[in-house]
Amino acid sequence: MKVKLLMIGKTQESYITEGFELYKKRIVHYLPFEEFTIPTLRDTKNMKDAEVKQKEGELFLKNLREDDFVVLLDERGKQYDSVEFAGFIQQRMNMATKTLIFTVGGAFGFSEEVYKRANYKISLSKMTFSHQIIRLIFMEQLYRAFSIINGEPYHK
Amino acid sequence: MKVKLLMIGKTQESYITEGFELYKKRIVHYLPFEEFTIPTLRDTKNMKDAEVKQKEGELFLKNLREDDFVVLLDERGKQYDSVEFAGFIQQRMNMATKTLIFTVGGAFGFSEEVYKRANYKISLSKMTFSHQIIRLIFMEQLYRAFSIINGEPYHK
Repeated sequence: MKVKLLMIGKTQESYITEGFELYKKRIVHYLPFEEFTIPTLRDTKNMKDAEVKQKEGELFLKNLREDDFVVLLDERGKQYDSVEFAGFIQQRMNMATKTLIFTVGGAFGFSEEVYKRANYKISLSKMTFSHQIIRLIFMEQLYRAFSIINGEPYHK
Repeated sequence: MKVKLLMIGKTQESYITEGFELYKKRIVHYLPFEEFTIPTLRDTKNMKDAEVKQKEGELFLKNLREDDFVVLLDERGKQYDSVEFAGFIQQRMNMATKTLIFTVGGAFGFSEEVYKRANYKISLSKMTFSHQIIRLIFMEQLYRAFSIINGEPYHK
């Protein structure tokens, strides 16, 4: 299985990039990992928020393959603890999922079409985090999940 | 009101420090903020985990004043969304709390004495995060809380 993180919008701040790369290096010991950022739309001055969300959604859907298993990181999603999240990933591997895609939405969230295409929604917390922080939280949880799956101690 | 973040154990990794300082700069526009790290105990080779936790707890309690309102960031705590968390902070201000202390435990968690002294427990997520990541998540939520309290838009 391959894991892909699809992000919509802004590139990362330097401290996010540093933390992101740190976890990425650890994650690729377990399986192939790829990140992909759909760039922020230009000339959105005259566009309504809903329109930006719509267009971002279209770009997002273009980047998917039919057999991708798509998980939205969404406040309305299922709340897991870290062990349950590891169980979810293990389950996808057992189901022979080829590519497991996690995605962080843009500033205006996901469009209806993206919700329709998604296979699952997971919430990392009841709290709202910035898109920057979410990326880091996700990477740490993904790394933690593989530590759990492999029965390794994870030193905090 | 003053907010203090009390941390037990390791100093921060560079990307955590960078993100931490970034949010700290924003938070001090709203109120005084202070962080304090209780250093990791030396010579713990011959100490049991429970003993380390105990000793860390003692150092922790030494740093408290009687009228400090102490909140543990603990998985077993109350789960808030960001607006509810802002409401909690607003409430402490209304109750004329002088110093509101949030604390992140050490690798072995909090000792019984620390649990007894604490006034409240808050959980940032069902998931388990590293002590490093928790610091960043907390700072972002604290900043977000003040943005909410002051009715300011918070650009993600």
